[in-house]
Amino acid sequence: MIAIIRQGVNEKQIDSLITWLESQNLSVHLSKGEFTTILGLVGDTSKIDIELLENLEIVEKVKRISEPFKSANRKFHPNDSIIDVSGVKIGGDNFALIAGPCSVESEAQIIDIAKRVKASGASLLRGGAFKPRTSPYDFQGLQADGLELLKLAKRETGMPIVSEIMNTNHLELFEDVDLIQVGARNMQNFELLKELGKINKPILLKRGLANTMKEWLMSAEYIMAGGNENIILCERGIRTFETYTRNTLDLSAVPMLKELSHLPIIVDPSHASGISRLVKPMALASTACGAHGLMIEVHNDPKNALCDGAQSLTPAEFDDVAKSVEKIREVTAL
Amino acid sequence: MIAIIRQGVNEKQIDSLITWLESQNLSVHLSKGEFTTILGLVGDTSKIDIELLENLEIVEKVKRISEPFKSANRKFHPNDSIIDVSGVKIGGDNFALIAGPCSVESEAQIIDIAKRVKASGASLLRGGAFKPRTSPYDFQGLQADGLELLKLAKRETGMPIVSEIMNTNHLELFEDVDLIQVGARNMQNFELLKELGKINKPILLKRGLANTMKEWLMSAEYIMAGGNENIILCERGIRTFETYTRNTLDLSAVPMLKELSHLPIIVDPSHASGISRLVKPMALASTACGAHGLMIEVHNDPKNALCDGAQSLTPAEFDDVAKSVEKIREVTAL
Amino acid sequence: MIAIIRQGVNEKQIDSLITWLESQNLSVHLSKGEFTTILGLVGDTSKIDIELLENLEIVEKVKRISEPFKSANRKFHPNDSIIDVSGVKIGGDNFALIAGPCSVESEAQIIDIAKRVKASGASLLRGGAFKPRTSPYDFQGLQADGLELLKLAKRETGMPIVSEIMNTNHLELFEDVDLIQVGARNMQNFELLKELGKINKPILLKRGLANTMKEWLMSAEYIMAGGNENIILCERGIRTFETYTRNTLDLSAVPMLKELSHLPIIVDPSHASGISRLVKPMALASTACGAHGLMIEVHNDPKNALCDGAQSLTPAEFDDVAKSVEKIREVTAL
Amino acid sequence: MIAIIRQGVNEKQIDSLITWLESQNLSVHLSKGEFTTILGLVGDTSKIDIELLENLEIVEKVKRISEPFKSANRKFHPNDSIIDVSGVKIGGDNFALIAGPCSVESEAQIIDIAKRVKASGASLLRGGAFKPRTSPYDFQGLQADGLELLKLAKRETGMPIVSEIMNTNHLELFEDVDLIQVGARNMQNFELLKELGKINKPILLKRGLANTMKEWLMSAEYIMAGGNENIILCERGIRTFETYTRNTLDLSAVPMLKELSHLPIIVDPSHASGISRLVKPMALASTACGAHGLMIEVHNDPKNALCDGAQSLTPAEFDDVAKSVEKIREVTAL
Repeated sequence: MIAIIRQGVNEKQIDSLITWLESQNLSVHLSKGEFTTILGLVGDTSKIDIELLENLEIVEKVKRISEPFKSANRKFHPNDSIIDVSGVKIGGDNFALIAGPCSVESEAQIIDIAKRVKASGASLLRGGAFKPRTSPYDFQGLQADGLELLKLAKRETGMPIVSEIMNTNHLELFEDVDLIQVGARNMQNFELLKELGKINKPILLKRGLANTMKEWLMSAEYIMAGGNENIILCERGIRTFETYTRNTLDLSAVPMLKELSHLPIIVDPSHASGISRLVKPMALASTACGAHGLMIEVHNDPKNALCDGAQSLTPAEFDDVAKSVEKIREVTAL
Repeated sequence: MIAIIRQGVNEKQIDSLITWLESQNLSVHLSKGEFTTILGLVGDTSKIDIELLENLEIVEKVKRISEPFKSANRKFHPNDSIIDVSGVKIGGDNFALIAGPCSVESEAQIIDIAKRVKASGASLLRGGAFKPRTSPYDFQGLQADGLELLKLAKRETGMPIVSEIMNTNHLELFEDVDLIQVGARNMQNFELLKELGKINKPILLKRGLANTMKEWLMSAEYIMAGGNENIILCERGIRTFETYTRNTLDLSAVPMLKELSHLPIIVDPSHASGISRLVKPMALASTACGAHGLMIEVHNDPKNALCDGAQSLTPAEFDDVAKSVEKIREVTAL
Repeated sequence: MIAIIRQGVNEKQIDSLITWLESQNLSVHLSKGEFTTILGLVGDTSKIDIELLENLEIVEKVKRISEPFKSANRKFHPNDSIIDVSGVKIGGDNFALIAGPCSVESEAQIIDIAKRVKASGASLLRGGAFKPRTSPYDFQGLQADGLELLKLAKRETGMPIVSEIMNTNHLELFEDVDLIQVGARNMQNFELLKELGKINKPILLKRGLANTMKEWLMSAEYIMAGGNENIILCERGIRTFETYTRNTLDLSAVPMLKELSHLPIIVDPSHASGISRLVKPMALASTACGAHGLMIEVHNDPKNALCDGAQSLTPAEFDDVAKSVEKIREVTAL
Repeated sequence: MIAIIRQGVNEKQIDSLITWLESQNLSVHLSKGEFTTILGLVGDTSKIDIELLENLEIVEKVKRISEPFKSANRKFHPNDSIIDVSGVKIGGDNFALIAGPCSVESEAQIIDIAKRVKASGASLLRGGAFKPRTSPYDFQGLQADGLELLKLAKRETGMPIVSEIMNTNHLELFEDVDLIQVGARNMQNFELLKELGKINKPILLKRGLANTMKEWLMSAEYIMAGGNENIILCERGIRTFETYTRNTLDLSAVPMLKELSHLPIIVDPSHASGISRLVKPMALASTACGAHGLMIEVHNDPKNALCDGAQSLTPAEFDDVAKSVEKIREVTAL
């Protein structure tokens, strides 16, 4: 950590700051320039509140040099984490296709889709039961009933299931859900993250709509600090000024995060653009740049879907995507 | 609502769409151009799921013409809403200064600050008890104890109190809090919003870090749809590419929202920049463009504050800001 | 084009607006709702100034339905444009690798790099002579001398050359440059675009730092409106709030633009992140989602490069990327 | 400047880097931590190319501590610059109202507007002759004829005139223009900036659509490095995700820039929102937070304006704004 001292501060003030910093178990190196004096702080700065320091009158700016995340940091855990979701491995060399409808709508719907995406190579079934919708007047999901239908589909097909949680009060309902999703809007719902840190179930942590990779890893750190290290990151597009696509899929995040962290990273190409025609090219691109998996919306009748039909593939389209993804995997695995 | 039909669609398909739309209680007007066919949908479209429509194969794009918010919309409620916070009115011609520390730290601290900001003209006391922090290693607030200290300060000074809620489970703890704040990171925590719609207490709804005014008003709509119409909006800066300031305070939102909605709108100039030197100029600017109030961080010892000290004013600085704000008010009220 | 009429406007005013619109050769369809009255304008609206209309007192908002670009629009030119750059074809099924240094530095450097990238499969040689740098104190390029060295390399290797123009006054100097690049910062330098519309040479139009796809296509339209239809688009990353990468590469723009326009679209994975380690994964991703080519920075001695060395590949690294790209091409071409 | 050394680099490599840095006239301070080694570089780093350094294999990251701008930096020029525009002073305690139409349209129009805005207190007349329009099909301004009409209005009223330049070739035409405007889209047209550095006329430098304050000051630095120090900055809104307003006016930039730089800063509240109803509140806010002036669009017949009528005030509305601004000035000057 670097603290830049304000111009015109006298030696005595600097000495007193150094003494205080050393009392925080940091060792301090002083660099004096003509216009700038800098303190280099060495030691465990991850637990220092940067604003506390910045707010001292004699300090102009503080810059963190080491990353503020520790458990999620590849520097301290050089090997890839491999997350086991009820037998399906994600991370390292393990690639997983997660597929299913935006919303669970009926027993027939979810079982039909589950069978078809499994046949095409999906290893996990997704389905929304609790739906975060911008408008209170939009369909909010089948809720607890939706989770029951998902479990039926799991019994029928043997596929582990993935669904989004929106409230710590619902945790009990999610006991048989194999991978609990934290949606983009809840990425910084710290109360929820803390609760998820206390359980021992894999968490799929989606990137917030306008969150940096650093904030995203800090949210993973919230869960990990509680003791649950089973985290899979999911890139799903960020908010920019562009309007043709709903969000801008940030694929550079895939190789960047693989460098910064040991956690697996998958991509959701369906939500990012909101346009089903873009799902295939973006699924191939995600695979080509090294994602550990894909989460794709599939609906047996997209034009009558109760939610986000515009971005859903039909099972036949998903089959085509899955085959092409497999071919890209063969090339990049070489 | 406008539905633009894809090129090459035949008359029969369009007729069948029109029939379906009419069955949804909408009347439909057809415009045929050389390159584009458009359907104008008239009626109550606020409860139509826009994605449901967009996802029909023959539809290219759907554009909403009327705003999707109703209860918060000035069109349907032309008069300013005035919110009564335990006797302090906000909205219309009523202006309120809310002041206090980022975090409640001790009885002595909160009572001292409360007395001093009251003397300078603040009518509501703010103080954080539950703190949303990016890092799990940063100070998380005194929590329930912090709320107790706030209530002590209320008894001592008679000022109504404002504090942030982060979890529906804490609602009981907030029974004596006069104005419940929903923070930026929870603006789209829809589960929380729904619960707040069931109570009858004023809500201070901060704008999300990267949320549009429309989404913000939709979040107000979530609370109002539940029956609680006592909402005050609070602009606190949005995320942009700029790095000198922590966020970009969007003051145009003040006159824009006053046009779109009847709800009062206040400004938090402390969080937006994260720099205490910018609080005064931005407080004056907020007042000049018509805000119904200000929320300002004040700490008796900013350089030893446990949280966000860098953006806090001293009580003396706050007194100076309050006096200048009052002068601007005199001018703009003419 | 849709014009939404303000509430409370009387029939006479609407009639007079309709009469005026019809005099502009548009036919008008009227939709009257309880809360909203809408005019649908049909005909050639591409030459209507949208702000002119929006500014009438009785009009609340105007929404364009058809795209404002015509020459660049796939609707009116369904077949892929194939651009011929001195014998190298780009667009349709033709894929091109463009490689070379950020800045031309010396005869030995440019000729060495040219030979090596050609051997690895590059078909065009890039090299900066005029360099747009944020700071006036940074290296500004060898300018006219740089162009001369590029031409030497062209004579030596037979590769057509690409270089960036920054000033209409330099047009003469670019006479032997085969593909003239317009950089991100000049994407809306309309005076430059107009001049390039008058020549008959292929133009590589980079996307502006914070420009939408629509604005980008409008800039292409500026050149095409002047008569020069030889345009290749180049995605190079957009500005967002993320800080780990310099820019956010918007790969969804590739399939989206292929739908909107007939012009070829290539990707520059070097500038987007500013990190050489990300060039390979992003090059593969760009290829997988359908780009018509790649522009990659290669330097024989990146650590002593005068400009942007941090994002340059060595010739050996480029060779590896080129081979992997070729394999992805084989898979996606199936 | 701080260079962070990559993990695992050996002492010899670090020594050789230090030797090289010292040969660049920098003195180097070494800080060794358990996980991080940092070099503090002291001396004149403003002319060091940051990418050159970052690109060395052993370097992980480079952070600039001092600002890269020198001539525009308040640290080196503590007193406010006051720019004299043909007798009208801007900067320090001098406040100026600049008013006039988006486009000059006719002699009658410009003279009428000039007289009326002068009567209301404007001290400079603005008028667009060369107009940067997103679409090649939109009105491009009267060009040279427009400048002639502006000069007529200047002769008639004695007001100095302001107009936008888009091309270095037009410099001669601007000889009698008192304040030359560089528009947002040309803020990083470095060729234009260099030419403007060679003349001795005041320059009004608008902020780019998506440019940081640092880049903006670097563009000022381009002009100043050439010898022309007569620069006035103009905030005009930045691009964000918000859609109700065309751009987001960044008023925090006003006090922030006054701290960073000695150059005067004015605000254009008309372009930022694109909505005339927001001009008054934002003009008052700009004044309240310390702007040195305002640039406001005024048109005698906004609904028939050839350009940007939607954001223009009538002369009567401008008179009202000018009076209110004056009252705010009286309060803030105390």
